[in-house]
Amino acid sequence: MHDIINYTEEEMDFSVGQIASLLHGEVVGDEKTKVNNLSKIEEGKPGCLSFLANEKYTHFVYTTEASAILVRRDFTPEHEVKAALIKVDDPYSCIALLLNMIDQMRPKKGGTDKECHISGSADVSAAAYIGAFAYIGEHVSVGENTRIYPQAYLGDNVKVGKNCIIYPGVKIYRDCVIGNNVIIHAGAVIGADGFGFAPQNGSYMKIAQIGNVVIEDNVEIGANTTVDRATMGSTRVKHGTKLDNLIQVAHNVEVGANTVIAAQAGIAGSAKVGDNCMIGGQVGIAGHISIGNRVNIGAQSGIPNHVAENSNILGTPAIPIKDFARQVVLLKRLPELNETVKRLQKEIERITDKLNE
Amino acid sequence: MHDIINYTEEEMDFSVGQIASLLHGEVVGDEKTKVNNLSKIEEGKPGCLSFLANEKYTHFVYTTEASAILVRRDFTPEHEVKAALIKVDDPYSCIALLLNMIDQMRPKKGGTDKECHISGSADVSAAAYIGAFAYIGEHVSVGENTRIYPQAYLGDNVKVGKNCIIYPGVKIYRDCVIGNNVIIHAGAVIGADGFGFAPQNGSYMKIAQIGNVVIEDNVEIGANTTVDRATMGSTRVKHGTKLDNLIQVAHNVEVGANTVIAAQAGIAGSAKVGDNCMIGGQVGIAGHISIGNRVNIGAQSGIPNHVAENSNILGTPAIPIKDFARQVVLLKRLPELNETVKRLQKEIERITDKLNE
Amino acid sequence: MHDIINYTEEEMDFSVGQIASLLHGEVVGDEKTKVNNLSKIEEGKPGCLSFLANEKYTHFVYTTEASAILVRRDFTPEHEVKAALIKVDDPYSCIALLLNMIDQMRPKKGGTDKECHISGSADVSAAAYIGAFAYIGEHVSVGENTRIYPQAYLGDNVKVGKNCIIYPGVKIYRDCVIGNNVIIHAGAVIGADGFGFAPQNGSYMKIAQIGNVVIEDNVEIGANTTVDRATMGSTRVKHGTKLDNLIQVAHNVEVGANTVIAAQAGIAGSAKVGDNCMIGGQVGIAGHISIGNRVNIGAQSGIPNHVAENSNILGTPAIPIKDFARQVVLLKRLPELNETVKRLQKEIERITDKLNE
Repeated sequence: MHDIINYTEEEMDFSVGQIASLLHGEVVGDEKTKVNNLSKIEEGKPGCLSFLANEKYTHFVYTTEASAILVRRDFTPEHEVKAALIKVDDPYSCIALLLNMIDQMRPKKGGTDKECHISGSADVSAAAYIGAFAYIGEHVSVGENTRIYPQAYLGDNVKVGKNCIIYPGVKIYRDCVIGNNVIIHAGAVIGADGFGFAPQNGSYMKIAQIGNVVIEDNVEIGANTTVDRATMGSTRVKHGTKLDNLIQVAHNVEVGANTVIAAQAGIAGSAKVGDNCMIGGQVGIAGHISIGNRVNIGAQSGIPNHVAENSNILGTPAIPIKDFARQVVLLKRLPELNETVKRLQKEIERITDKLNE
Repeated sequence: MHDIINYTEEEMDFSVGQIASLLHGEVVGDEKTKVNNLSKIEEGKPGCLSFLANEKYTHFVYTTEASAILVRRDFTPEHEVKAALIKVDDPYSCIALLLNMIDQMRPKKGGTDKECHISGSADVSAAAYIGAFAYIGEHVSVGENTRIYPQAYLGDNVKVGKNCIIYPGVKIYRDCVIGNNVIIHAGAVIGADGFGFAPQNGSYMKIAQIGNVVIEDNVEIGANTTVDRATMGSTRVKHGTKLDNLIQVAHNVEVGANTVIAAQAGIAGSAKVGDNCMIGGQVGIAGHISIGNRVNIGAQSGIPNHVAENSNILGTPAIPIKDFARQVVLLKRLPELNETVKRLQKEIERITDKLNE
Repeated sequence: MHDIINYTEEEMDFSVGQIASLLHGEVVGDEKTKVNNLSKIEEGKPGCLSFLANEKYTHFVYTTEASAILVRRDFTPEHEVKAALIKVDDPYSCIALLLNMIDQMRPKKGGTDKECHISGSADVSAAAYIGAFAYIGEHVSVGENTRIYPQAYLGDNVKVGKNCIIYPGVKIYRDCVIGNNVIIHAGAVIGADGFGFAPQNGSYMKIAQIGNVVIEDNVEIGANTTVDRATMGSTRVKHGTKLDNLIQVAHNVEVGANTVIAAQAGIAGSAKVGDNCMIGGQVGIAGHISIGNRVNIGAQSGIPNHVAENSNILGTPAIPIKDFARQVVLLKRLPELNETVKRLQKEIERITDKLNE
């Protein structure tokens, strides 16, 4: 059965009054103004609904070509505004709500493309989508409303829960377990062998990696990110955590719940990252260390040692962010400091000479 | 129809005289010498045509086994040379020309492999190649002479122009637009969701990413590089720009024209990079900042703030490259500076004591 | 023929006595204790065999729920131990041996999935596995006992030796050569074009990359790692070398034998890395430089220049690891140093005033 619903290019077409009513907002201007698209305020075009969430962008309110703008309830324009205004409590969360509504209106893929490979022993929900050239191994289970896009690979014994989206070309090695409401973007690799070798007379013996990866509910994993399987036991990404693109999560790592990690960060083997952390892009975390809960790590930092909870750190090796800022200033002034010391040295020589006279 | 032309292993087989004539060069030595391959001068073998583009390699002219060498018109050997010399204006651009000629001689893939998936509503040029297990979604268009290699994925509504090469396993999400003469290497992911989440009571709500990615004409994108779709509007890579492998381009980023970015660099959300920039490997660029035109950024730099045009910067946070070089020297001398200050401290104590006597 | 052997969920089920006999160990406790799984000592559960390889973990011996523990021959417990102990010479290499034995017991894929694409001119061993949606180009050869997983791509003229594992979605461009006993993980791209462009009136002309990649015997390449083809000649990874995930190896690079490189490191064009090196995660190595044999480079380092053999370096630009440690301490004390200099400056002014009185 090949029943992908055709994508239709219709988008939203609402009046400002309808949107205000949906968002419990108040209209200043013409309620009948039609909008059919969303935009950033600096890119507003006629027909667009835009928003003002950051005060820095206030001047665009007076120049944007957008037909309507979501603003805070306490916003009072200082000049004339051409656009209709919709006053709401929180413009940013309103625009997020509208984005998600538009996204929900897109037809969803369903059914099974005829060119896919589903093993006889697999247990695939009738309410799942399996795309063309997807490979579903032996004893795999796929829950309801889960969408497995074309060219994805689920190795033997993989379990994928309900309402997941596995984008094209994702590779999930045997035995890995994916929870519910998980999104994995194209090219991500879940469950490749951990990097484990025993030195042996100048060469290396591979240590088999017989563990797996467990991705808990509500996790999102970015494009081309890699999460390696454990040597024994499980590499684990806990519920609600969001990983950006091109991240490396090594074997036996545990990433806590509701943590966000930006692109190209790397976490070495057996490290533990806490809950509710925010980790910047290109950060490197050493193996076998613990990062506490609610830790913020600035971009490109290197973390060689344990980090206490609630820390806010930056640099390589990372130090408290205030110390880092001070260090940067002092580094800039290092030439000056160097000159000062040279001058002092000369003055002391002069003084010493004088005293010896 | 399955009409891939067989690759033949014939390569060029020319005389030195023929090559000299092609390149408007002058032969010193035997015009009838045959060459059938190109090589670097330090790796030259009999039958190879090599080149001397960098003076540092001049000594290889006398020792190489290559049968012929492209040299500058003003090159005069100091010892005997076994190889035939071809004197030209610019050996490097001549070798580039020959490389491209050899590459053009390779047969090109054509037709459509029978195992691919082409949706009924797709508009694929009869003069395009669609490889096995490629997936062409609904309403996709593919221009003439474009080659879509095996296992590539073009989501619904994707547009790919003329003369493009989409290598195996490239994933292009729905709605993205690829210009003409674009090359995208294997494993690159174009149009995955931007990393956008709204904090909400200790967890994160996904913000739908309804924009797309636009790749303009003559762009090349490296293997496993990721370019995320915009939240609203477009993430854009402008004409003539070259991205190396494993680069992250976040949502709503704009990369200017004719800019080159080396491997593993990352550009955070909504940053703008100018035209004619050169950005080194593993550089990190923060979100919402602007990099001017003709900016050079050294490898591994971190860029937290706006950068003025024509800047030449290095380090984390990046500073002018001359300042960085000075800082590195002073950092090396930091132990010395520290000792000097300790000594001065003692001398001052001594002086103070003396004065107090 | 589609004869993948079903994966069976049986695992090992041995007595402690049997395992001791296999490992030439000595049992302290009940020889008849059954174990059916391996675990880390801190994650031990009933039925698990665990191990004590690192003294830091000794306290877990008294609290673990594991049924048996591998310990060193000279280990004598200080308190009561519930688990059976197996005393061996080297617990770590014993556990590695057991892991590999368990891994060997897993049934191996065999035969050819019917949905794959094998070109007429390809030479595929009858004792190889070719998975579904794999693409085997013209004139490709695949040696015996090699497993090509689903959705892998071998371009025209690719040669893959014996006993290799090419995991799902690996892309190997035309003309590349893979030795024997090589493992390449999912999403790795071998042989994409090197990043070579000649500047030309403000834009860039592509330089064709007509070389290839050679991967020698016993190499392992991690998930989503990229190894670019040479402009001319070969990019080469020598025998026994292990590359982790998301690594960039640029065109014409040569990586020596038995070298290990951790995730997200990058090596720029034409650089040479020696034998028996250890290179940390996120390291960047500049183009056209040489790294000697037995060099250790700490994580996140930047290497702009040649490195002599046996060096042990860290930092950006990298310096001897002892110097780096000292520099970090002095950087932390920079505010203090700055204060000291200010104070000395005042004291000297005071002294000078006094002398001028």
